[in-house]
Amino acid sequence: AGGDTSMHGLVGKLRAQPGQRAALAAILLESTTAMPGCLAYVVAEDVEDEDALWITEVWDNAQSHQASLQLPAVRDAITRARPLIAGFDSHVSTRPLGGVGLSD
Amino acid sequence: AGGDTSMHGLVGKLRAQPGQRAALAAILLESTTAMPGCLAYVVAEDVEDEDALWITEVWDNAQSHQASLQLPAVRDAITRARPLIAGFDSHVSTRPLGGVGLSD
Repeated sequence: AGGDTSMHGLVGKLRAQPGQRAALAAILLESTTAMPGCLAYVVAEDVEDEDALWITEVWDNAQSHQASLQLPAVRDAITRARPLIAGFDSHVSTRPLGGVGLSD
Repeated sequence: AGGDTSMHGLVGKLRAQPGQRAALAAILLESTTAMPGCLAYVVAEDVEDEDALWITEVWDNAQSHQASLQLPAVRDAITRARPLIAGFDSHVSTRPLGGVGLSD
């Protein structure tokens, strides 16, 4: 069935409901430990914007990213995270080229 | 002398001079293979903005990041990259919390 075999990435600025950033980050971190095809998933607090998280994702391909959204742990995390999310300030699709820290 | 021991990160949208994105990315990728304290350095093309690269960096602490700027390979890369760079559209300091793909 082919499919796109180039790496697939996302860089997003995720805004938590006021005061909920730490709780939201904890959910994201615990739910992303066993996702097939996930080469990187970095969760970082914005230093100057107290409700903002930056998420950088690298997947071996777009299919792996789509499939991850059906994993029970991920579905459960999305359910728990949703009430803590105000929205995405930005959410950009990327083609990762490489670098340090891409596991497999 | 102490110093901050929390992880240090950057998420930046780097704009290449028109048509120079691939050349700029190649310099970034070749110069970032041996930087002490660098836990992640992901270079990714913006899918919708043909001259833009997204750089996600994770360092064990801010001192390691500062020290990297003095490494001969990094100084050489900066010299070669500078003429290819139009500017940073954004450049945000972060406190990485964890995730997949942080090497050490």
